[in-house]
Amino acid sequence: MYRTHTCNQLRLADAGKTVTLAGWAATIRDKGGLLWIDLRDRYGITQLVFDENYTAPELFAVARSVGREFVLQASGTVIERAAKTTKIPTGEIEIKVSELKILNKAKTPPFTIQDDTDGGDELRMKYRYLDLRRNAVQQNILFRSKLAIETRKYLSEQGFAEIETPFLIKSTPEGARDFVVPSRMNPGQFYALPQSPQTFKQILMVAGFDRYFQIVKCFRDEDLRADRQPEFTQIDCEMAFVHQEDILNTFEGLTKYLFQSVLGLDLPDFPRMTYDEAMRRFGSDKPDLRFGMEFTDLTAAAQGKGFQVFDSAESVLGICAPGCAEYSRKQIDELTEWVKRPQIGARGLVYVKYDADGSIKSSVDKFYSADDLKTWLDECGAQPGDMLLLLCGETEKTRKQLSELRLEMGARLNLRQPGDFKPLWVLDFPLLEWDEDANRFFAMHHPFTSPKQADIPKMDSDDQATLKSMRADAYDLVLNGVEIGGGSIRIHDRDLQSRNFRLLGFTPEQAEAQFGFLLGAFEYGAPPHGGIAFGFDRLAAVMNGANSIRDFIAFPKNNMGRDMMIDAPSAVDQGQLDELGLKMVE
Amino acid sequence: MYRTHTCNQLRLADAGKTVTLAGWAATIRDKGGLLWIDLRDRYGITQLVFDENYTAPELFAVARSVGREFVLQASGTVIERAAKTTKIPTGEIEIKVSELKILNKAKTPPFTIQDDTDGGDELRMKYRYLDLRRNAVQQNILFRSKLAIETRKYLSEQGFAEIETPFLIKSTPEGARDFVVPSRMNPGQFYALPQSPQTFKQILMVAGFDRYFQIVKCFRDEDLRADRQPEFTQIDCEMAFVHQEDILNTFEGLTKYLFQSVLGLDLPDFPRMTYDEAMRRFGSDKPDLRFGMEFTDLTAAAQGKGFQVFDSAESVLGICAPGCAEYSRKQIDELTEWVKRPQIGARGLVYVKYDADGSIKSSVDKFYSADDLKTWLDECGAQPGDMLLLLCGETEKTRKQLSELRLEMGARLNLRQPGDFKPLWVLDFPLLEWDEDANRFFAMHHPFTSPKQADIPKMDSDDQATLKSMRADAYDLVLNGVEIGGGSIRIHDRDLQSRNFRLLGFTPEQAEAQFGFLLGAFEYGAPPHGGIAFGFDRLAAVMNGANSIRDFIAFPKNNMGRDMMIDAPSAVDQGQLDELGLKMVE
Repeated sequence: MYRTHTCNQLRLADAGKTVTLAGWAATIRDKGGLLWIDLRDRYGITQLVFDENYTAPELFAVARSVGREFVLQASGTVIERAAKTTKIPTGEIEIKVSELKILNKAKTPPFTIQDDTDGGDELRMKYRYLDLRRNAVQQNILFRSKLAIETRKYLSEQGFAEIETPFLIKSTPEGARDFVVPSRMNPGQFYALPQSPQTFKQILMVAGFDRYFQIVKCFRDEDLRADRQPEFTQIDCEMAFVHQEDILNTFEGLTKYLFQSVLGLDLPDFPRMTYDEAMRRFGSDKPDLRFGMEFTDLTAAAQGKGFQVFDSAESVLGICAPGCAEYSRKQIDELTEWVKRPQIGARGLVYVKYDADGSIKSSVDKFYSADDLKTWLDECGAQPGDMLLLLCGETEKTRKQLSELRLEMGARLNLRQPGDFKPLWVLDFPLLEWDEDANRFFAMHHPFTSPKQADIPKMDSDDQATLKSMRADAYDLVLNGVEIGGGSIRIHDRDLQSRNFRLLGFTPEQAEAQFGFLLGAFEYGAPPHGGIAFGFDRLAAVMNGANSIRDFIAFPKNNMGRDMMIDAPSAVDQGQLDELGLKMVE
Repeated sequence: MYRTHTCNQLRLADAGKTVTLAGWAATIRDKGGLLWIDLRDRYGITQLVFDENYTAPELFAVARSVGREFVLQASGTVIERAAKTTKIPTGEIEIKVSELKILNKAKTPPFTIQDDTDGGDELRMKYRYLDLRRNAVQQNILFRSKLAIETRKYLSEQGFAEIETPFLIKSTPEGARDFVVPSRMNPGQFYALPQSPQTFKQILMVAGFDRYFQIVKCFRDEDLRADRQPEFTQIDCEMAFVHQEDILNTFEGLTKYLFQSVLGLDLPDFPRMTYDEAMRRFGSDKPDLRFGMEFTDLTAAAQGKGFQVFDSAESVLGICAPGCAEYSRKQIDELTEWVKRPQIGARGLVYVKYDADGSIKSSVDKFYSADDLKTWLDECGAQPGDMLLLLCGETEKTRKQLSELRLEMGARLNLRQPGDFKPLWVLDFPLLEWDEDANRFFAMHHPFTSPKQADIPKMDSDDQATLKSMRADAYDLVLNGVEIGGGSIRIHDRDLQSRNFRLLGFTPEQAEAQFGFLLGAFEYGAPPHGGIAFGFDRLAAVMNGANSIRDFIAFPKNNMGRDMMIDAPSAVDQGQLDELGLKMVE
């Protein structure tokens, strides 16, 4: 070893010991006759000291030649510091260096290795090895590592076996776009990289493994919206002989355990809400419960008074923004512009200010009496000093728009605190989702999700509304407005699975060609089963109150899917393409 | 839950309890008025009993309708068995069933779910979900799962952080053939799937993570020899600020820990041998040390007596096969044919039998006196009853051939016992390997391996023999003749890395284009570092005394790289290719 101790090990009790440390020169302070180097490694920082009074001139010269981020090996004696600090655990000692070896030099980094200087996104990603030296980023990656350890610990103790599923699998047109991998040995044929190990984990249940999990990479070739990665990590789980309740309990247990073991936080039991209720109360299937501002349906109260915009709307929905009655004209105009942006798409914003003195002001004063408006305020539970914000239109769209506005107001009012954690189970998702463009139903969760027992007879209906009303044994785990996990009870009956494929527009031949192995497996004794998958990158980010998953991935890609450090993807030799029987089209 | 207990939980002390179990009908015995079903799950087997004397006729009829591998849920009372068995832990009880529900039916499986009936390779792989139900295979997969848990436990406790490296990386022509992944967002460009996370783990050392590991899938698009898989799993590790000795100690520690924790075996300290010594004594860089039969160099003793075949050979090498003096003419002829097969390629086999009565017989009697032959026997340490086997020719080839013969004789003489474990470190591998076809040097380990300090000056030589004689800080961990791990101290100096690339035929431009990020990283303070990777599939197999890694992989591919169960790879839609800008060439 190049060292006897790490840079976070020595304390005052070690004074007098002869030690050897190795690490990076984090900071160098040169006061002429005195020179200090903060030596940094993954574990911490220890101060090296050189003093003209006792340091040999040759050694002092070596120390003076050290630059930032040089890699050093230093031997010497642990001594008590004159100027102690409590900022670092080694703050009471320093090393009186007797031998210093420069193990490697370093050019001046393009940005300093400190928490608050990251040099911008492009530099950070190109020099990711330097960015990862910054304590903030390094701690994120180590946090993730710890989170994985605790996840495995909990699930192993619950009898889950981690079983690796293959990465070179088969492309299926259902779901997101696959990354494909040409097969040289089978010309004209391709593997696909898994979007999830879904069918394999179901096969493992048929095979009798009872409880499976895997922390595993998954792949989706999607146009990358903010904070999506083409490769991402899931905690993927499946259980046999369980009902939905068993899965909720098991994975609520996992989540509580992770918060306890990694963050030291005890979460109370998770509330539950149906999909319908979540949409009605928050306009979202992943409501952020760190704050209220629930929706109030003002349709009945607002219609019939001659205000054409509301009268012609399917829904008039409002939220009460606490303490916002003081909002200026300018602030309200700005908020109106905000909801009218194409990303939100509202046509306008109606407000009702409930001033502290009890007076009411509104943008729709001319259509509604003070009494009318007071009714709205009361329905929304507004207090003097609050302001109602109303949107209207087609119900589904209005809910989405108002949900965005609610989140925005929550942020502006500092009601979405990073250290506050509000988990929620959302249950009873619809089985199907109608796609206008494709003019067919898609599975809301995935094609293997079981309809609720009571809704199975509806599967034979021709009526779109009836089919739309079907509910599934599907559930999401939501944390602070972010979906961190989702799953379902699966179909384990061949006939039911075939009927579901039919609803999704598969011909029997297509179903057989793509999922014949699973349909086959269902004929040889498939147990009832279900599961869940957590977005691991996102879980790590949310637990840290962070918005971006990128800082929890050691080597993330940018939103063109590029790894800026290694410069991938890149062109390959024509010879490689020839071997694969492939040609680029101009 | 569908059950109150698993099928391996109930004991005599539970008699009288009302329980519910769920699982598969493993065996059904129908004795007319009495019917037993062995209910099986991952954990064990519990017997269900139905008796005309007390079972309701409708229930008895349901029980009688049950077929093999039906999925059942049974409730009833735990009772003491009349005919107890010690073969299973639940052998003292059975369940007097009061309620039986068929959760799913099963067609008759194409092979029975038993240890010794697997229906042949093709059926097994097509119906892998049934094959995995067989106890032998299921236990292998669960063994692997346990091995991963213990690996992570040990390495975590040693301060290693598991850090995920990307799967969509960059293709490099060095090493084996890459699987490539076309990028839709970057037309004409490709990702490659990693053959190992080599450069990323080195980058993590530059980033200061100090100790990294990962149990990770790797990919190689090679023509599949027996027991190779296009995707395989490594325990991939790297450490900073270490010398070779530190790595050997750490991973000898890991290996001992795994044997102790998973198999309950204490391995003594691992012997070490240089590459040269291993080649000289065993003709192999991965000698099986479970038996002796070391090589004896008989060149000097055998030459100059007029036997042209030996006289013209670079080397005459022999092994002593203990107790084989009784081999018949037929056996020796068969052995001679064996070494002459193209896979071995020897031109002939010379034997010297040392009979129990002290007499000596040989195939080269006419060239050598009994005294000559006695000298050989003595040099080989032969005892009466033994037989020498000699091969000759060019040294390297002869060593390889004799190594194969040694392993074959070891197997024939039952000297390679599965439960016997003989680990070995092989050290000081050559840095370079000359490739006749390519007419250039390749890195024996990989291009990032450090030459031994003393050999660095040789790098500037033009002399092939000098370059060939260079040794690297590279090591393999060998277990029972199988390489289970290999690694090296890496280069951490930019100039040295550039010189090494030059030796390997890279132009500076090629080196920069392919590994510029690593060369760049070496300029910003790279610490000394090194690492190792274990073949995880192989480790699991060798620890079980198994030859094939396939039975330790849940969903392996056949030797055409096909997954027979899901039928992958397969053709993809033309639309998918269009999006990628790709065309198949006829």
